[in-house]
Amino acid sequence: MPAAPGRSEFGLIGRYFSALGARREDVALGVGDDAAVLVPPAGEQLVACIDTLVEGVHFPRGCEPRSVGHRALAVNLSDLAAMGARPAWALLALTLPAVDESWLERFAAGLGELAREHGVALVGGDTTAGPLCITVQALGFVPAGAALTRTGGRPGDAVFVSGTPGDAAAGLLLEQGRLKADEAENDALRQRFLYPAPRLALGQRLRGLASACIDVSDGLLADCGKLAAASGCGVVIDCEALPLSAALRTATPEAATLALTGGDDYELAFAVPQSRVPALLAAAPPARWGYQRIGELVHEPGAVARRAGAVLPVASAGYDHFG
Amino acid sequence: MPAAPGRSEFGLIGRYFSALGARREDVALGVGDDAAVLVPPAGEQLVACIDTLVEGVHFPRGCEPRSVGHRALAVNLSDLAAMGARPAWALLALTLPAVDESWLERFAAGLGELAREHGVALVGGDTTAGPLCITVQALGFVPAGAALTRTGGRPGDAVFVSGTPGDAAAGLLLEQGRLKADEAENDALRQRFLYPAPRLALGQRLRGLASACIDVSDGLLADCGKLAAASGCGVVIDCEALPLSAALRTATPEAATLALTGGDDYELAFAVPQSRVPALLAAAPPARWGYQRIGELVHEPGAVARRAGAVLPVASAGYDHFG
Repeated sequence: MPAAPGRSEFGLIGRYFSALGARREDVALGVGDDAAVLVPPAGEQLVACIDTLVEGVHFPRGCEPRSVGHRALAVNLSDLAAMGARPAWALLALTLPAVDESWLERFAAGLGELAREHGVALVGGDTTAGPLCITVQALGFVPAGAALTRTGGRPGDAVFVSGTPGDAAAGLLLEQGRLKADEAENDALRQRFLYPAPRLALGQRLRGLASACIDVSDGLLADCGKLAAASGCGVVIDCEALPLSAALRTATPEAATLALTGGDDYELAFAVPQSRVPALLAAAPPARWGYQRIGELVHEPGAVARRAGAVLPVASAGYDHFG
Repeated sequence: MPAAPGRSEFGLIGRYFSALGARREDVALGVGDDAAVLVPPAGEQLVACIDTLVEGVHFPRGCEPRSVGHRALAVNLSDLAAMGARPAWALLALTLPAVDESWLERFAAGLGELAREHGVALVGGDTTAGPLCITVQALGFVPAGAALTRTGGRPGDAVFVSGTPGDAAAGLLLEQGRLKADEAENDALRQRFLYPAPRLALGQRLRGLASACIDVSDGLLADCGKLAAASGCGVVIDCEALPLSAALRTATPEAATLALTGGDDYELAFAVPQSRVPALLAAAPPARWGYQRIGELVHEPGAVARRAGAVLPVASAGYDHFG
């Protein structure tokens, strides 16, 4: 497109993103050239994902930029977690309507903090003008053949979920003023939407134990349904077993529905063959690792939620941008 | 964000993007899980870049979708070319205002055709709703330590450029109706904007010969200036040596200015120490490989264009999205 001199987008990248995240010995060349040069560990497989957040679609307009930076990386790290990968590097494509230094500083702080927490180096980026939209691409590693996938589940496998699903969906409703709660619950639930914690340590711990694993981002029932479908079976979730947080139960009578269908959890749902459940409980004690058994894979296709033996009528399609 | 049942974005990705590009043995798990699992070649370094195209910024509204798909990958492959890398895998993050199957089909065709031409497999993606915006992330490889960078140039090095810069900028002006030309020139120049050819073979051939290399995307003079600055020197370009295409010269009296300052070339500019120029000419005969000597790196910082010994007054800042 035609040249238009002015404030350099490259200067912009350089200032906020040149040394973001962890310092890693395996970065031969980071931000600032045409591409990054990286040194993969010998004998391991590379795990790669990409995810976009669009203002007004994945986060409300005017959302705190520190949260936007955190979530842009977190949603990708959550994908790596679901594969059992340990994260290494990330690239950032940032489209901005205008240069707002205060916004950029807080966005970079949120992204950088989470990156450092998980040892991730930001190694490349692109900054363009346009509607606010953030794409992060994350790279990590697994020992050869050890990646968790969605496809290994079998009927009879126990199904587990980490964390307390539904909190983030309630947090978003609170952010949007579509739900009211007391200050304690309001703060707790909003934090769960604004600053999700990708379950990287748990994902790595599940290698060799889980038969299938998925990142819960579009709603627990929908994502368990995707895992089940990819594994050639169905799934039944027991509503009485859902790990509902005290904050969620206090904030809304719809806690179970939000837990089943609300998006943005960034938890892990995983299947474990019955024979390996004792090994799972020994390797990752649930009280310490924060996960709970919620159901089972079954022969019959589909994803259903049951309460007291009866199927609940919940929409299970999950979040769909083209709905 | 709240669940909204409807046409599945996952189905969308699956249909158009599940098997796009080359088939590669080193893809252990491609599109369809939480992340791709890839097998890097032993002993090589990974080269990674990311680039975004925004409608109305990087391509005109209503641009042919086959071209948009081609360019979204081409701009990234051009970055890999500038590093001397051979491409392997790509991930796609596609933000679309609505599902338009005809648009998607043509977009996928353009991206897929270029991917196959260069042996690139599309291994992952994300599709979201929002303003039209495409981010591609590309991954490739170089032998350890062999990557070309912007930083190795020294005063006295000869500077070369591939192709015929300025054609794409003229092509865009023609697309926008801001320039008129006869049919032959119109077609030739528009093709150069719509379907740029990343110089991957040339980039790999330059390993061990070029001291520095850059992808020309923001204007030849500006990008040579970046290479020179990264190398701690300046650059002088000889306007009489610019490789102007016959189509460009026929279409506009401003051919040299467009060649110096127009964007979207996706050619390579590179520096070669005088001592290695004979080896370059032997390893990559210019007539066959399509490049030309256009200037020299110098001690004095800055990027200047000279004609008959006089400095030309051309804006050299290049394209800047925040100008």
